[in-house]
Amino acid sequence: MNEREFLKQYDKTAFDQPIFSVDNVVFTVANGGLEVLLVQRAEHPFKGHWGLPGGFVDLQKDLTLDDTALRKIREKAGVEPDYIEQLETLGSSQRDPRDWSITTVFTALISKQRCVPTDENVSSANWFPVTTLSELQLAFDHLEIIERALKRLKNRATYSLVPCALLGETFTLAELQHVHELILGKKLEAKAFRRRVENSEQFEETGGMTSGRGRPAAYYRLRPGAMGFEFVRSV
Amino acid sequence: MNEREFLKQYDKTAFDQPIFSVDNVVFTVANGGLEVLLVQRAEHPFKGHWGLPGGFVDLQKDLTLDDTALRKIREKAGVEPDYIEQLETLGSSQRDPRDWSITTVFTALISKQRCVPTDENVSSANWFPVTTLSELQLAFDHLEIIERALKRLKNRATYSLVPCALLGETFTLAELQHVHELILGKKLEAKAFRRRVENSEQFEETGGMTSGRGRPAAYYRLRPGAMGFEFVRSV
Repeated sequence: MNEREFLKQYDKTAFDQPIFSVDNVVFTVANGGLEVLLVQRAEHPFKGHWGLPGGFVDLQKDLTLDDTALRKIREKAGVEPDYIEQLETLGSSQRDPRDWSITTVFTALISKQRCVPTDENVSSANWFPVTTLSELQLAFDHLEIIERALKRLKNRATYSLVPCALLGETFTLAELQHVHELILGKKLEAKAFRRRVENSEQFEETGGMTSGRGRPAAYYRLRPGAMGFEFVRSV
Repeated sequence: MNEREFLKQYDKTAFDQPIFSVDNVVFTVANGGLEVLLVQRAEHPFKGHWGLPGGFVDLQKDLTLDDTALRKIREKAGVEPDYIEQLETLGSSQRDPRDWSITTVFTALISKQRCVPTDENVSSANWFPVTTLSELQLAFDHLEIIERALKRLKNRATYSLVPCALLGETFTLAELQHVHELILGKKLEAKAFRRRVENSEQFEETGGMTSGRGRPAAYYRLRPGAMGFEFVRSV
């Protein structure tokens, strides 16, 4: 039998395979804190519980795993995220009452101002402060998954520019510092933070300035292609 | 319908799911260079080609995804690796001629002296220098996967102790430095390397010394629980 004949008669259902899904931990900054997007489950298992936006690969629509993650976020949040990366894949016989189950987890960042729910599916979606999640009964191992994503985000905040994806397209240095502080849960020294941002050479001034009370502050934006850049020293 | 009734009638085959597998990039150091473990494929697709040791989850035998990875390495290399970590998960409609396919990739390190093939399955397995892989026709996207694993290993070698898993249980500082140099593809300064190892406080002298020609060198081993430690500064 040659390969073409083999492929013709190949029946993937002859092998007992685990359930495979994608889950997204989508963070935003709102109401003075970090928030995560959750969806109330319409179906068993964990019907009525809050869980991460995710689901199965659509073998017709999705060309890659990234497509699945982005499609699921679009369906639930109404927009594309400003930043997305794969966190890790978790699989075990215990995490899903249906069967042996695997989930590939993505972490996404989205600026709240862009995130306006646009279709009906979204009515079941809501943002929750990460500090109040223990009061909800989350589906599956989703609380643990969020904690792991948060740990990675904190890590990123010490040595990368990634958290700026939580802001709009333009922002002041004070706003950027504030986002890093929210994620890290501690105050940073303004002078040292400014020096690191400038040394990174990955931001440029837009020319615009804040107006209103106090000293005007310059607006910055990322230089094209700067995403993913790492600070030379951690903050 | 309550959750118990739902689970009773749930049929996972009603959803068209991708093929899911695990692949391992297992590195060792031998013959003065970095080598990777490959297995000659006994079946289509890519029959007769060399590919990464991996396979399907065994829903009865494996409790977690890590179990699948370790089982596959045991089956092909005859031993447990000295270090293993998840690299990433790749999925697309194109990477496998059978169907939409997903693979979770693990990177493992093994010291060559421990790696003696022990059973019949292993006859099809062989170690290849990473510098000669382009001469082989590898199955699927396995060449690209190895390149991604190599990039991660290089990264680890700049800021972690992970590469010492390629040596035996005890080693001299010169041997440890040599392994870092092999991975990084450049010479390191001996004094600075020794200082970083000592500053890490993660190694201890065994009390033994090399014998033979030249000045005797002390044997070191990892302190218990030291694995995963990161250097304060990269090498």
